Amino acid sequence: MGLIVCKFGGSSVAGIDKINKVASRIKSLQAEGYGIVVVVSAMGDTTDELLKLATGIGNNLNLREMDALLATGEQQSAALLALALDKIGCKAISLTGWQAGVKSNSNYSKAKISGIDKQRMEKELTAGKIVVVAGFQGLSADGDVTTLGRGGSDTSAVAIAASLGAKRCMIFTDVDGVYTADPRIVKEAQKLPSITYEEMLEMASLGAVIIQPRAVEFAMLYGVDIEVLNSFSLEPGTIITEVTNMEQHKIVTGVAHDCKCAKIGIFDVPDKPGIAGIIFSALARAGVNVDMVIQSAMREERNDIAFTICSDDLHLAVPVVEEVVKEIGASGMSYGDNVAKVSIIGAGMQSNPGVAAAMFEVLATENINIQMISTSEIKVSCIINEDDVETAIKALHRKFKLNQIND
Amino acid sequence: MGLIVCKFGGSSVAGIDKINKVASRIKSLQAEGYGIVVVVSAMGDTTDELLKLATGIGNNLNLREMDALLATGEQQSAALLALALDKIGCKAISLTGWQAGVKSNSNYSKAKISGIDKQRMEKELTAGKIVVVAGFQGLSADGDVTTLGRGGSDTSAVAIAASLGAKRCMIFTDVDGVYTADPRIVKEAQKLPSITYEEMLEMASLGAVIIQPRAVEFAMLYGVDIEVLNSFSLEPGTIITEVTNMEQHKIVTGVAHDCKCAKIGIFDVPDKPGIAGIIFSALARAGVNVDMVIQSAMREERNDIAFTICSDDLHLAVPVVEEVVKEIGASGMSYGDNVAKVSIIGAGMQSNPGVAAAMFEVLATENINIQMISTSEIKVSCIINEDDVETAIKALHRKFKLNQIND
Repeated sequence: MGLIVCKFGGSSVAGIDKINKVASRIKSLQAEGYGIVVVVSAMGDTTDELLKLATGIGNNLNLREMDALLATGEQQSAALLALALDKIGCKAISLTGWQAGVKSNSNYSKAKISGIDKQRMEKELTAGKIVVVAGFQGLSADGDVTTLGRGGSDTSAVAIAASLGAKRCMIFTDVDGVYTADPRIVKEAQKLPSITYEEMLEMASLGAVIIQPRAVEFAMLYGVDIEVLNSFSLEPGTIITEVTNMEQHKIVTGVAHDCKCAKIGIFDVPDKPGIAGIIFSALARAGVNVDMVIQSAMREERNDIAFTICSDDLHLAVPVVEEVVKEIGASGMSYGDNVAKVSIIGAGMQSNPGVAAAMFEVLATENINIQMISTSEIKVSCIINEDDVETAIKALHRKFKLNQIND
Repeated sequence: MGLIVCKFGGSSVAGIDKINKVASRIKSLQAEGYGIVVVVSAMGDTTDELLKLATGIGNNLNLREMDALLATGEQQSAALLALALDKIGCKAISLTGWQAGVKSNSNYSKAKISGIDKQRMEKELTAGKIVVVAGFQGLSADGDVTTLGRGGSDTSAVAIAASLGAKRCMIFTDVDGVYTADPRIVKEAQKLPSITYEEMLEMASLGAVIIQPRAVEFAMLYGVDIEVLNSFSLEPGTIITEVTNMEQHKIVTGVAHDCKCAKIGIFDVPDKPGIAGIIFSALARAGVNVDMVIQSAMREERNDIAFTICSDDLHLAVPVVEEVVKEIGASGMSYGDNVAKVSIIGAGMQSNPGVAAAMFEVLATENINIQMISTSEIKVSCIINEDDVETAIKALHRKFKLNQIND
């Protein structure tokens, strides 16, 4: 009998009705003959409510205590789901992270899983029980409760699937799967039957947040197949897996976009070694991640430097850059968040030159100005004006024939 | 340096402001030079809200999962109190029941503490930290989270105090201490500076629920002094301890009353061996505890039997008794919850005959009819009409000079 690990996110267990629906879904999976481990996130707003309490106390900085506090949310949803399964006649047992043997380092609030002691889970599975594990949490070597940071429950699920040698890790969420483009914008967008780990990683980091990149990296490392699918629909989802021949004939798998971009420009930067280091280490100290960078030699000994960051970080970055401008003797700066990133992704790109050129042509035809370009082996990203995003992704979707994915 | 264990109940930590106030109170205790372990209950309504979720799911019968669910409430308040202490400069660490080493049997929802592995608590105390323990919970030998049932946090606190050899266990609550009578009814009621374990047990079981009887029994067994005091006042409370000479000169320590009584009468019960057994074992099977019983021989071979139960159980008891009446051939039954129990308690009573008689006289003078009587070595209880309670306890309070307790 095969084993399946299922993960249900916070929106899938937000309330009694949804928890009962999730229980029915799990029951039908069990009826297909699978052994089942379920990983759950906290119900809907629970984590936000706990954060609000800590903020009210006036101290959300003691990360050890914050983790002890936040981990209770998943413990509650796990127990409630076990009760719901029990009610419909499925033997079930809820386990906290530490009971499930999820070990982590002590890096509170963003701990990394260091190993899984699967003994307890195997014992309960052997006893014929559905094991419901509180996601997002682990236990440090000191015996303290940790949380795994953003997307931690996805990572819990994949790690548990890897340790138990599960046939598949099913990530149930509020979308039907991974699409060739955002279906809210591109009507012809197709659900992909499968996608490679690398493509999914690019997709996720480029704005299509369906599953946390950390979980995909983990799955890639341990060769676990992930299926992303809708909690409340019976349609198959998208399988994230190794490259297969079937997939390689497609050059471009999908079009992604990210409107949470901001661009900062610095004018007349002296062309001396170490200047870029000053700028970007100042930003790093302020906790700002820089995405794309271009440096353009305008005239001798003076350059312009432009880079993009997440628009949420703009208020942090601007004062830092203003300081740096004075320090390095640049002539000024500009910034704005009216930019967006549009990307094409495809594992087949590696062996097909000319894909980037085709993308630039499409944008030119649509009269869209490209402000920056960044490429990797399996993606090409362009920074464009935010107003042009819809036109761009529709045109790219057509150009690369992504509406024919299921033909 | 002495060690103190403090326990704060749900109403003392119901909300951010109260948690911050509790933190200040603990800080001033620490300033007096004590090492401190704090045991907390869940915030105000948390437990009720979790119960409501389980009821909504339609399954609150799987006690293992109910315990896993409910235990999160105390974990949250412990973490929040640790955050509040941390904010005002007190090094603090929250521990769940299992982290604090509280071991129990597997009797979910009303588990009994089987031992305490004090290693982790001692390590944190040695490191100068205030240890905040989630009350009401333990860990079974199978590694499962249990809850200790009603008043479990009081019991956690006393057990931890016993295991750590604490100087005192302070139970902070929403009353100022133990009074000679309910101060809402008897204006002259005095706060007792001290009371013996036995007296407190009688008080508690007779309706003055300030601390759970189980916790008092535990304290008596291990010789732990308990102080009951108000969370939000700096007045000393009442110390529950061994009999001391000081206390023995008072014959009656307090007057207690309990209006949650119901009385059931069965008429013309055949006077055969085993009949009482039939009645009371049927009630026990229905989960109804019988308090006082009288059997009056009216005429040959037929008796009337009357007994009292908690009025909450009346709806359970009535159909059981109706069945039994038919089965044993009694002539009928009566029931009502318009009765109450009034009691006088005092360790000094043992060596002072005539106390019961004095009580009956007082009630007779007030023209109050006594329906049943029950006595133990340190208390006398009478069942009277509920409407007479106020008159009765005021008169008894005067008679036994309880307003002079502090003279």
